[in-house]
Amino acid sequence: MGILRSSFCALLATVSCGAAIAQTADPLPSWNKGEARQRITAFVDTVTRKAGKDYVAPEARIAVFDNDGTLWSEQPMYVQMAFMLDRVKTLAPQHPEWKDKQPYKAVLERDLKALSEQGEKGIAELMAATHSGMSSDEFNRIATDWIGKARHPQYNRPYTETIYQPMRELLDYLRANGFKTYIVSGGGVDFMRPWTEKVYGIPPEQVVGSMGKLEFTMVEGKPVLLRLPQIDHVDDGPGKPVGIQKFIGRKPIAAFGNSDGDLQMLQYVAAAPGPRLAVIVHHTDAEREVAYDRKSSIGRLDKALDEAKAGKWVVIDMKEDWKKVFPFQ
Amino acid sequence: MGILRSSFCALLATVSCGAAIAQTADPLPSWNKGEARQRITAFVDTVTRKAGKDYVAPEARIAVFDNDGTLWSEQPMYVQMAFMLDRVKTLAPQHPEWKDKQPYKAVLERDLKALSEQGEKGIAELMAATHSGMSSDEFNRIATDWIGKARHPQYNRPYTETIYQPMRELLDYLRANGFKTYIVSGGGVDFMRPWTEKVYGIPPEQVVGSMGKLEFTMVEGKPVLLRLPQIDHVDDGPGKPVGIQKFIGRKPIAAFGNSDGDLQMLQYVAAAPGPRLAVIVHHTDAEREVAYDRKSSIGRLDKALDEAKAGKWVVIDMKEDWKKVFPFQ
Repeated sequence: MGILRSSFCALLATVSCGAAIAQTADPLPSWNKGEARQRITAFVDTVTRKAGKDYVAPEARIAVFDNDGTLWSEQPMYVQMAFMLDRVKTLAPQHPEWKDKQPYKAVLERDLKALSEQGEKGIAELMAATHSGMSSDEFNRIATDWIGKARHPQYNRPYTETIYQPMRELLDYLRANGFKTYIVSGGGVDFMRPWTEKVYGIPPEQVVGSMGKLEFTMVEGKPVLLRLPQIDHVDDGPGKPVGIQKFIGRKPIAAFGNSDGDLQMLQYVAAAPGPRLAVIVHHTDAEREVAYDRKSSIGRLDKALDEAKAGKWVVIDMKEDWKKVFPFQ
Repeated sequence: MGILRSSFCALLATVSCGAAIAQTADPLPSWNKGEARQRITAFVDTVTRKAGKDYVAPEARIAVFDNDGTLWSEQPMYVQMAFMLDRVKTLAPQHPEWKDKQPYKAVLERDLKALSEQGEKGIAELMAATHSGMSSDEFNRIATDWIGKARHPQYNRPYTETIYQPMRELLDYLRANGFKTYIVSGGGVDFMRPWTEKVYGIPPEQVVGSMGKLEFTMVEGKPVLLRLPQIDHVDDGPGKPVGIQKFIGRKPIAAFGNSDGDLQMLQYVAAAPGPRLAVIVHHTDAEREVAYDRKSSIGRLDKALDEAKAGKWVVIDMKEDWKKVFPFQ
């Protein structure tokens, strides 16, 4: 539109040009016009209406999103788990002893039953072996390289394409309405940061996640941040509101999750005074994705589903509310 | 200017209207035209020149600032120390036993010698007694209330006015050039967040600092974040680059400090490839503020001053480089 667009925007002193243009098209084309969409857009209208009593200034329009199962698929296993298993295989030649030592043996023999018998302690050992002992820069390169090459076992596409198209539209829509969008995930922060800006439009500094301890040290006269095997912050369950306060330092007005790991974050956001939006993505679509909730070992949604009903949170029914699930469908 | 301004801005598609207007006046009126100013503006010109080989995209233009002694006065004592001492006095009626118990006795009797004899352990006990045991919301109210009423003992003005006017101009100037400005301070993050947006234009989520552990809990059915007495992160010395990686997740291209507590942050930023700016505020002005460096117990600048010379960092000579120190002068 060139000059025409510029002139048009110049007349609208109070809105940004991008937002003004965006409003001419449906900002949520992958959403059916059901209750979930209606309640989300009504909330956004409410907090952005300047004359309204529930107006929220742009700097306080903070929205937090869980990642696994909320923005991208967490089935058949967390993507970071796939990364970890691949890393064990990649590193195995440097560790000949792993062939006969659990939990590594189970991974190398693709023996998922034996692996699950190792329990959380086994996973913690694998995490330490694959996620620590290198510099932050080096881990960043490893994660960037892996996410660029690995493919989802079922869809045979890069994991960065197994994201939920309606949620990506929602992120854009919220940002066009002055929201600052954050990820608040149980996943490792440094596993996500290399690609969230490109995939979701969320920059590294707006990603909150689990993390290990870091140590500043000098290596050959150069400052280096070394990744230690000790856990620093577990950003899951009660760790999510803690992470929000530590890393963001003010209360979001909207929160999106999909499992009991998001319960406390949703409670924390919903309970604050003023207009608040708490949303659950309910995996109801066995055809286009996977249907799971109360009985699932990954992304169990049980208590949070009860609370959603009691607290009148928005529950997105993926099958009913979304025209498509993945961008490639 | 109204319509005229809007039309003018509409013709400039690539810059924001605010930035275009700002460029007509000197953005750094409190700075003398010496080497420090020249090197800082040359750096900004270099990283924002789109055709240049050292161009840095706006999203990577991250600048980090120490607070105490870099953005506001840290003499005759850290402002948070004054807050802590005031809190002990305020809370004393609820703790009659403090009258006879160190380190509280020393505070209540204004016996700074006895207080210093209590050492770091004494300070840690006072910190725990005044900074923990309440919710995040409650501490936020306490800090907000105090900063609104307390006054600097020497200048008899609110502490939020004992900030360095040239640094505030620098923050504005960097933001007008697409930088995202962060505080990375040894001070308590929740002590700073209530006022940094108003005073420096830096929102709470762009403040990195020291912090205690938090616990999510339910009180009368409401989610609450409880402040625990244990330390979670010490954002000083080697803790500063660690804090940058944890809370920002990418390397700043510019760092500003004033003491040896900023040494590792300055090293970390200066050592990265590409154009980098490392700056030290040197307190040389005994008349308008306080002159101190290598021998000072508060804000000692010794090793970092040596490194600044060796690494050709920018050293701001407050007496020579600044037309004024405080806004009220």
